[in-house]
Amino acid sequence: MSLRVGVIGTGMIGRDHIRRMRTVQAGVSVVAVADVDGELAARVAAGIGAVAHPDGRELIASPGVDAVVVCSWGGTHEEYVLAAIAAGKPVFCEKPLATSQQACLRIMAAEAGHGSRLVQVGYMRRYDAAYRALKQVLDSGVIGAPLMMHCAHRNAGVPDFYQPDNIITDTAVHEIDLVRWMFGSEIVRVRVLRPRASRNAGELPDPLLLVLELANEVLVDVELSVNVRYGYDIRGEILGEDGTVSLGDPGLVAVRRAGQVGGPVPADWRDRFGAAYDVELRDWAASAAGSGPPDGPGAWDGYAAAVVSEAAVRALRTGEPVTVTLVDRPKLYD
Amino acid sequence: MSLRVGVIGTGMIGRDHIRRMRTVQAGVSVVAVADVDGELAARVAAGIGAVAHPDGRELIASPGVDAVVVCSWGGTHEEYVLAAIAAGKPVFCEKPLATSQQACLRIMAAEAGHGSRLVQVGYMRRYDAAYRALKQVLDSGVIGAPLMMHCAHRNAGVPDFYQPDNIITDTAVHEIDLVRWMFGSEIVRVRVLRPRASRNAGELPDPLLLVLELANEVLVDVELSVNVRYGYDIRGEILGEDGTVSLGDPGLVAVRRAGQVGGPVPADWRDRFGAAYDVELRDWAASAAGSGPPDGPGAWDGYAAAVVSEAAVRALRTGEPVTVTLVDRPKLYD
Amino acid sequence: MSLRVGVIGTGMIGRDHIRRMRTVQAGVSVVAVADVDGELAARVAAGIGAVAHPDGRELIASPGVDAVVVCSWGGTHEEYVLAAIAAGKPVFCEKPLATSQQACLRIMAAEAGHGSRLVQVGYMRRYDAAYRALKQVLDSGVIGAPLMMHCAHRNAGVPDFYQPDNIITDTAVHEIDLVRWMFGSEIVRVRVLRPRASRNAGELPDPLLLVLELANEVLVDVELSVNVRYGYDIRGEILGEDGTVSLGDPGLVAVRRAGQVGGPVPADWRDRFGAAYDVELRDWAASAAGSGPPDGPGAWDGYAAAVVSEAAVRALRTGEPVTVTLVDRPKLYD
Amino acid sequence: MSLRVGVIGTGMIGRDHIRRMRTVQAGVSVVAVADVDGELAARVAAGIGAVAHPDGRELIASPGVDAVVVCSWGGTHEEYVLAAIAAGKPVFCEKPLATSQQACLRIMAAEAGHGSRLVQVGYMRRYDAAYRALKQVLDSGVIGAPLMMHCAHRNAGVPDFYQPDNIITDTAVHEIDLVRWMFGSEIVRVRVLRPRASRNAGELPDPLLLVLELANEVLVDVELSVNVRYGYDIRGEILGEDGTVSLGDPGLVAVRRAGQVGGPVPADWRDRFGAAYDVELRDWAASAAGSGPPDGPGAWDGYAAAVVSEAAVRALRTGEPVTVTLVDRPKLYD
Ligand SMILES: [Mg+2]
Ligand SMILES: [Mg+2]
Ligand SMILES: [Mg+2]
Ligand SMILES: [Mg+2]
Repeated sequence: MSLRVGVIGTGMIGRDHIRRMRTVQAGVSVVAVADVDGELAARVAAGIGAVAHPDGRELIASPGVDAVVVCSWGGTHEEYVLAAIAAGKPVFCEKPLATSQQACLRIMAAEAGHGSRLVQVGYMRRYDAAYRALKQVLDSGVIGAPLMMHCAHRNAGVPDFYQPDNIITDTAVHEIDLVRWMFGSEIVRVRVLRPRASRNAGELPDPLLLVLELANEVLVDVELSVNVRYGYDIRGEILGEDGTVSLGDPGLVAVRRAGQVGGPVPADWRDRFGAAYDVELRDWAASAAGSGPPDGPGAWDGYAAAVVSEAAVRALRTGEPVTVTLVDRPKLYD
Repeated sequence: MSLRVGVIGTGMIGRDHIRRMRTVQAGVSVVAVADVDGELAARVAAGIGAVAHPDGRELIASPGVDAVVVCSWGGTHEEYVLAAIAAGKPVFCEKPLATSQQACLRIMAAEAGHGSRLVQVGYMRRYDAAYRALKQVLDSGVIGAPLMMHCAHRNAGVPDFYQPDNIITDTAVHEIDLVRWMFGSEIVRVRVLRPRASRNAGELPDPLLLVLELANEVLVDVELSVNVRYGYDIRGEILGEDGTVSLGDPGLVAVRRAGQVGGPVPADWRDRFGAAYDVELRDWAASAAGSGPPDGPGAWDGYAAAVVSEAAVRALRTGEPVTVTLVDRPKLYD
Repeated sequence: MSLRVGVIGTGMIGRDHIRRMRTVQAGVSVVAVADVDGELAARVAAGIGAVAHPDGRELIASPGVDAVVVCSWGGTHEEYVLAAIAAGKPVFCEKPLATSQQACLRIMAAEAGHGSRLVQVGYMRRYDAAYRALKQVLDSGVIGAPLMMHCAHRNAGVPDFYQPDNIITDTAVHEIDLVRWMFGSEIVRVRVLRPRASRNAGELPDPLLLVLELANEVLVDVELSVNVRYGYDIRGEILGEDGTVSLGDPGLVAVRRAGQVGGPVPADWRDRFGAAYDVELRDWAASAAGSGPPDGPGAWDGYAAAVVSEAAVRALRTGEPVTVTLVDRPKLYD
Repeated sequence: MSLRVGVIGTGMIGRDHIRRMRTVQAGVSVVAVADVDGELAARVAAGIGAVAHPDGRELIASPGVDAVVVCSWGGTHEEYVLAAIAAGKPVFCEKPLATSQQACLRIMAAEAGHGSRLVQVGYMRRYDAAYRALKQVLDSGVIGAPLMMHCAHRNAGVPDFYQPDNIITDTAVHEIDLVRWMFGSEIVRVRVLRPRASRNAGELPDPLLLVLELANEVLVDVELSVNVRYGYDIRGEILGEDGTVSLGDPGLVAVRRAGQVGGPVPADWRDRFGAAYDVELRDWAASAAGSGPPDGPGAWDGYAAAVVSEAAVRALRTGEPVTVTLVDRPKLYD
């Protein structure tokens, strides 16, 4: 009766999803794990009474596994997602869907071959209550048709491995998916502008201003700052013809002391989007357990994000506007 | 491995707790239900694959039931809670614990006889993220020792059955429990002041100003308004010696249109405290499944709320200050 | 063509009003000053090219003075206001109008003898843009008839001369005038409740909760805190039958840094009410220069404030509710 | 003793400045007016007891006029400012200083010939309390060195005469001046991006995204929307290396009713910047009356705004980035 889930990749995000499925989600059992670090997988498995598989493909093939969560290194996503499709099992894949647009096309082809959607990609902002409220206001029509959006995506800091491209592929990719969903329109052109770099940024070109043009002519600008030190700060305001809607201030309390009134800024993405991850995974598990194909972001969205990210990386490197060209969207994703 | 829960009372709140345990909570199964309306109980049971018991005492006695959630009419709480204690089963009882202080004393005596805490009372505000943040700021010492608190508790409207006393026993009781927890001190005196009544209030004395004096001399005033029409609005600000802390504005988004900037007020308590109920029941179930005695509000808190509520009802009727007298707190509740 | 003003009392507030009349006000000349400290008066006079009079009565009598501003010690107000009325000259008197209700009655009698209003009392909150917006919302009817109001009046600290009574007569008196104006109704009963005292408060009973009942049954509670350290903080929220209106947060900017988002709290009353003083005095001078009797707070308001303050002082001392009794309001003040 | 001011141009803004000098400003008399509409000038003059001159040059030449305020049509500014400089009289000129950069250069040359600054240009945002607080936070160093700024400049609607260029020259010019002042650095490159146009905008390309690059590599983006219908909305947030500072929400009150919490948006620029105009003109008059050369925006600022505006107009027409080239700044403006 319960959905038996196998988790590939037991690093930080994988263990967090396991915790989530074992505490705030009903009807799900984590029965199997796998990780390139076999000892880690064994330890995690022991802690939750699950089976540790020597590799992800065996986990996917296991008859005791109904559905798969892929949290391994991005370079391995294609292989595991294709294996899950081949096995006819629902698969939740953390972003990115794959590391090239060609890989994404192969996944879409496999899914088309299967004949129905099996893949969901981990763009959790679509499940955030504030973004949903933003979209609800927009869709209600009270602010008129959308014209522009301003976003800011600020991280206190980033891991040591960050290279310039990661500011696009790991950070901006959330806004890339978000605006496609928010406005129901594809991104057709991207620009990246470089202000002076922060002394907190080391060698990184940080901050950046990413400008996205959509097919419906909505124009989006995104401030990307990954070393702001002060916290994790996500902003968004949509300009419509007759009004605007913006993300509220998420402060739970206001403190007045020592001449100041204020409150804490979220420390990191867990703090800000923890509840969105909960809803995301719950929603996916419900679809995987039989309520039908996932209605979250799918392979097409993963593909579009990959193409736009590649264009933005080129725009960052060249300083020039770059046009985005997508294949025709397969019927499966209508 | 899973906690098997029986739910007594399948009205609105009972069904909501069932939904909660079946969606946002892991490790819990609702295996049994009972209701004074046997047909309703049968219908609910059928919908979730549970057993419908003819009455609550049989449900409690059932060997297939590990722990009990009591959501029936307040007048029945004492009986079911005593039965659960007699059976040695953890019991979560929606507020009030019982409808008189004598009944609460009987429950405490039974629990003392059992030798450890089995009872949790449904004061969910202790699990609300904003109130917890308030308490965290207070306990951190950054605003100094507490001196006063101002609260407002506003309902858009109340059920037809509301009598004057219900404004204390059903509405104010949340603040009564809240401030005892927030300040770690008992209420020793209550006053109720009556402003002019709202034309929206029918025969009810609405609004009221409830004034609570605590043993540690913190003074709390609570505006109680149960027909404000515009929404459900919960406010609180604590004055400390060196600063203040107040509940933030829970708005997810801000809309600018037609000359105004603003956002929605929560519609009702589900809207405002839904997540607190989730955390509350999850926390309780974890303790019931074996993590130890509940650390939520217990029988002593239910007793204190009953005594203070009775005093406040008298203060409302007489217009005079009323002193609160509690028995000595049994060691079990230290 | 210009209004020639004499200022009695050249202490802090007197000099501030002089600065105001010489910078942000057209059509006014400060031509004369007087102070109990003759040297100070001479120095101030020299700085602005005005005449220093040996005493306030001579200043009032001077044919070169059209109108008088009284900023001297409260105990002298009656004498100067009566002299100004006797001379038929408009007089702006800083609060209090006089230090006893009998003195206020004598002033009203004198003004009645004169036959038209000459006196304005310095309750500047009536000129504050935020309080005016509050009143405008209330008077517009969109929140329905008023039922309750919650106020907080917090000072970072108070002068050394403060005695317990000053918390009423110098601090709370602003709210006493404010609510009479806001609700167009007299205060009929007062209570003062004492929470535990702040360690920052020395011997003072600080904070206090002042409760005011109005003739129209609106109930007002006022938190009075005069040693909060963190700044000057003025709050107010009116509960109406269908909604509420509250003072906004006066922050000009929001700063995000070091894990916090926030902004400065006003440092003191100059910071918070500086603009209100400007409007107040401008409005008064326009009336004094010929636009008609002042429409600001007058002798009746000064009298009512005195009576309510005396009652509140008794309530503070006795801990008992005290009834307020006013004489019938003379027609002049309709 | 009083500064005798002549006002050229008695249209809306001219009359507003006259009102200002006659109500909220001490030490200033409006003694003369002139307007291309002689009847209007005569009527305004009669209302305030001033002299109406047949033309602006005669007003400037009048020995009874100490200083000049130019509020006439932009095309006439150069002539009047040059005449005032020739007469050695301080002149406050509403924006723009002149309608071409060549005209601005002629004005600078004339001022250089005079040997000291006589000209102030009406960029009032530098006098706005909120922008000043923004600059104060920035200059204090608490958010580190500036990197980016996001602005929004929204008008409910614009006059019928508006052509596409006016969105730059009449609207964006305020941000053009503002960021030069805020960051103490010149604008070196401009871009204009065009989103889909609002159906409220008629033939205008509205909204626009203006991107400004400064010499110090700070990057500024400005949303320009001139038909938002809902009110006048001015936003700004500066990203520094260690934090951000943004304009607060200027709401005086918050109303809760009918399911919403909120407050009014300013209706227009008078509503939002009225106090800034007061301070601006007061500050100017003080300098003109002898406190020294104006420290407000001067001819160099007017010139720079003209050059950047011309570049932005070209960027709007061509869709291409346009480089800004200024002459070397004369020593007079250091
Ligand atoms: Mg994600
Ligand atoms: Mg409850
Ligand atoms: Mg005053
Ligand atoms: Mg201007």
